[in-house]
Amino acid sequence: MNPVLVHLLDLVGVAVFAASGALVASRKKMDVIGFALLATLTGIGGGTVRDLIIDRPVFWLLDQSYLAVCVAIALASFFLAHLIGRRYIVLLWADAIGLAAYGVLGAHIARSAGAGVLPAIALGMMTATFGGLLRDVVSRELPLILKTEVYATAALVAAGLFVGARELGLEAVPAAAIGFAGGFAVRAGGI
Amino acid sequence: MNPVLVHLLDLVGVAVFAASGALVASRKKMDVIGFALLATLTGIGGGTVRDLIIDRPVFWLLDQSYLAVCVAIALASFFLAHLIGRRYIVLLWADAIGLAAYGVLGAHIARSAGAGVLPAIALGMMTATFGGLLRDVVSRELPLILKTEVYATAALVAAGLFVGARELGLEAVPAAAIGFAGGFAVRAGGI
Amino acid sequence: MNPVLVHLLDLVGVAVFAASGALVASRKKMDVIGFALLATLTGIGGGTVRDLIIDRPVFWLLDQSYLAVCVAIALASFFLAHLIGRRYIVLLWADAIGLAAYGVLGAHIARSAGAGVLPAIALGMMTATFGGLLRDVVSRELPLILKTEVYATAALVAAGLFVGARELGLEAVPAAAIGFAGGFAVRAGGI
Repeated sequence: MNPVLVHLLDLVGVAVFAASGALVASRKKMDVIGFALLATLTGIGGGTVRDLIIDRPVFWLLDQSYLAVCVAIALASFFLAHLIGRRYIVLLWADAIGLAAYGVLGAHIARSAGAGVLPAIALGMMTATFGGLLRDVVSRELPLILKTEVYATAALVAAGLFVGARELGLEAVPAAAIGFAGGFAVRAGGI
Repeated sequence: MNPVLVHLLDLVGVAVFAASGALVASRKKMDVIGFALLATLTGIGGGTVRDLIIDRPVFWLLDQSYLAVCVAIALASFFLAHLIGRRYIVLLWADAIGLAAYGVLGAHIARSAGAGVLPAIALGMMTATFGGLLRDVVSRELPLILKTEVYATAALVAAGLFVGARELGLEAVPAAAIGFAGGFAVRAGGI
Repeated sequence: MNPVLVHLLDLVGVAVFAASGALVASRKKMDVIGFALLATLTGIGGGTVRDLIIDRPVFWLLDQSYLAVCVAIALASFFLAHLIGRRYIVLLWADAIGLAAYGVLGAHIARSAGAGVLPAIALGMMTATFGGLLRDVVSRELPLILKTEVYATAALVAAGLFVGARELGLEAVPAAAIGFAGGFAVRAGGI
């Protein structure tokens, strides 16, 4: 996959998960630092675990744009929360986009690093679910992954479709589109 | 220690922890994906932390058999749960075997990587307890490691006896047998 | 920064976080192994995450003194708990020292490894807060980081002042002193 596209998917994943973290901070009536912390943990959690396991440099360490996005989203959420509301439904949709994007991206990066089909799918699922899991454990919410039956399924579908389409010979970009669309559709159907 | 034996101990640890994860999924009435997810997290959690800290390639990344075992155990548990029941006692015994096997294995791998006696024992304990801790935190159960006094003690005995026996000059295999038997006996005595 | 000073700050961070872990074990009426486990997890948790993300050897793996300090503090706390009491206030102050020391140290090590300003501050905060977070999640306490508004702020101030002072051209040691004093003052003001 084109490095620019990988970077873009990573930014999308970081941004929407950061937004979901900021929304939980808002619902918990945290201060602005709490917003920044929870947005950042949620935004970079999944990709950090992915990079540690793949043993490549952690993506946000040398490129400041990822953290800047998390902080910007946290600040915007903090000062504009009265405009966008604290609606749980916004959290669910932001989470759904991140889930599908990271399911595909985690699987892609694992395959690029030489992982087999099954480990790549597992890593896609972990990348997709770990940020939100961290968000829920830290804020002592019942993890979405346990509350919603289709949650893990959507991550599995995103990662599985991508890896399957690649195995069938598709190029990375259409395979990623299929994986993202499939995973997002499954999750959206459950909202 | 013979690489084949290390691989075998790793598979045993993965399999019994995966079974304990699947049992919790069963008790929580999760769907089949929840079974697979919790079995896999529990099965590979301890070894993943071990490999990250030791800085060696994560064991399940390039060898698909580990994940295949987790998924197979999750599927078998899901479709046969009515046969084996959801008995808590099965969970306890599966967990006890994994605890002793991983206590020894974590300590062995740490020593092989040049760690001192104390870090090796600590890493054995972490390898043994982290998968179950992850299982309990994710499923919001009170961690077994806090509920049962002999839990951490058993992991300590397994890792400590192994490292001690090796220091006294024993070969790896008998030392591993002593560590496993000691740790398992302590845990079994507390069930 | 002088390697000896880094080592000393690391030891202080480990020791005070270990003490805070032992105090939670005491309040939970754990056995001596539980003391050792919770003291060690809390003591080395933050630095372990820091080293994994920076991709340098985990600090306690080849130097046994860190674990020896954790175990010694756990034993002392276990047998002398009736003398020092189980006062929550002791936990808070131990935690405050560790928070400030690790906020500075995490940021320093990240900068030395080539991280940008923002990632270095984020890593300082993570190093400072992760051990205590692990302690609270494992022992099922409401995380201090959520309970006390100035908690994350103090870590941010410690890491931010250090990085900012360094950017302004100060030597490492006075910058570290400023960061430590600032972070500690913020946290102390909230106790």
